Amino acid sequence: MRFDAEKEKKELGERKVDSKEIFDGVILHVFRDSVRLPNGDITGREVIRHVGAVCVIPVTDDGMVYVERQYRYPVDSVITEIPAGKLDSPEEDRLSAAKRELIEETGITADSWLDLGDFYSAAAYSDEKITMYLARGLHRGEQHLDKGEFLNVVQVPLEELLQDVMDGKIPDGKTQMAILKAAKAIEMGL
Amino acid sequence: MRFDAEKEKKELGERKVDSKEIFDGVILHVFRDSVRLPNGDITGREVIRHVGAVCVIPVTDDGMVYVERQYRYPVDSVITEIPAGKLDSPEEDRLSAAKRELIEETGITADSWLDLGDFYSAAAYSDEKITMYLARGLHRGEQHLDKGEFLNVVQVPLEELLQDVMDGKIPDGKTQMAILKAAKAIEMGL
Repeated sequence: MRFDAEKEKKELGERKVDSKEIFDGVILHVFRDSVRLPNGDITGREVIRHVGAVCVIPVTDDGMVYVERQYRYPVDSVITEIPAGKLDSPEEDRLSAAKRELIEETGITADSWLDLGDFYSAAAYSDEKITMYLARGLHRGEQHLDKGEFLNVVQVPLEELLQDVMDGKIPDGKTQMAILKAAKAIEMGL
Repeated sequence: MRFDAEKEKKELGERKVDSKEIFDGVILHVFRDSVRLPNGDITGREVIRHVGAVCVIPVTDDGMVYVERQYRYPVDSVITEIPAGKLDSPEEDRLSAAKRELIEETGITADSWLDLGDFYSAAAYSDEKITMYLARGLHRGEQHLDKGEFLNVVQVPLEELLQDVMDGKIPDGKTQMAILKAAKAIEMGL
């Protein structure tokens, strides 16, 4: 699938006319911009600027995955997630951030890191880009949770997680995606 | 993988102490809440309240997928996405919303709809829940784009999209997930 990105941007692109900062939070920076559409009309765009994030699916030699049970306030429930976290700064190396989050949240270090690619969590209104890694060759050490971070680490077979994804039992987006992609990557011999 | 959700919520849950509305936008409602952590400490939570959304991967009998090339302002680029849109209201039936978005954006109606499950796009700071559908038995009609909506519809083989996902060429989260999940569902004979 090949596209002429420059030509498409000329045809479909929007130009910023104005930008107003709404909220400068710890995680979320919210803006309300005005843009000029391809037909010349002006419209509003609500935009979240986010520093970016990483997530890691740690899989043992015998196909077990370390996942976390973590309470998420916006959805008021404890859900299954893979280790993840935001970058310390936009410039931070993403692999270093992934290694840091994995050891902090689970105490695990890994010999082998496969980049499973990036994705935008909500490109319609946010620039958050998340990079996914598959970590193998695992060694367990001690967890170093951030102050105010509470979660339980459990081991689940990758095959069971894959079935849970298909049965709709993994509500977290990045976790669903990483399970599907890791299973596919392992199946492809990557 | 079975958990005692009630017991976990008692152990890991956070309780709202205060909530302040920051922004009441068209798409985004932003709040800054204060919560009490399991250890009794008080901390802040930045939360987006979102009405919810649906997305549809429309696959023809010979394995072609209708995808869209659409400009996304927050990431300043034209990206490949499946048809999607937000609910008109929190009460709107999700399947009806998916049918509406598919016909509006592509002109397509479908005989068969398979629910591929829900996911939270960013559970750490948003309650947005997206429901995915696999649409088959397709019939092409006329596109009815919303005013101010600009996108190109193209056909790409599902196999090629799956390879693009593994090669990191599909930056949109919901689109990556729907491609992986639809391919898996078809492989499983669903």
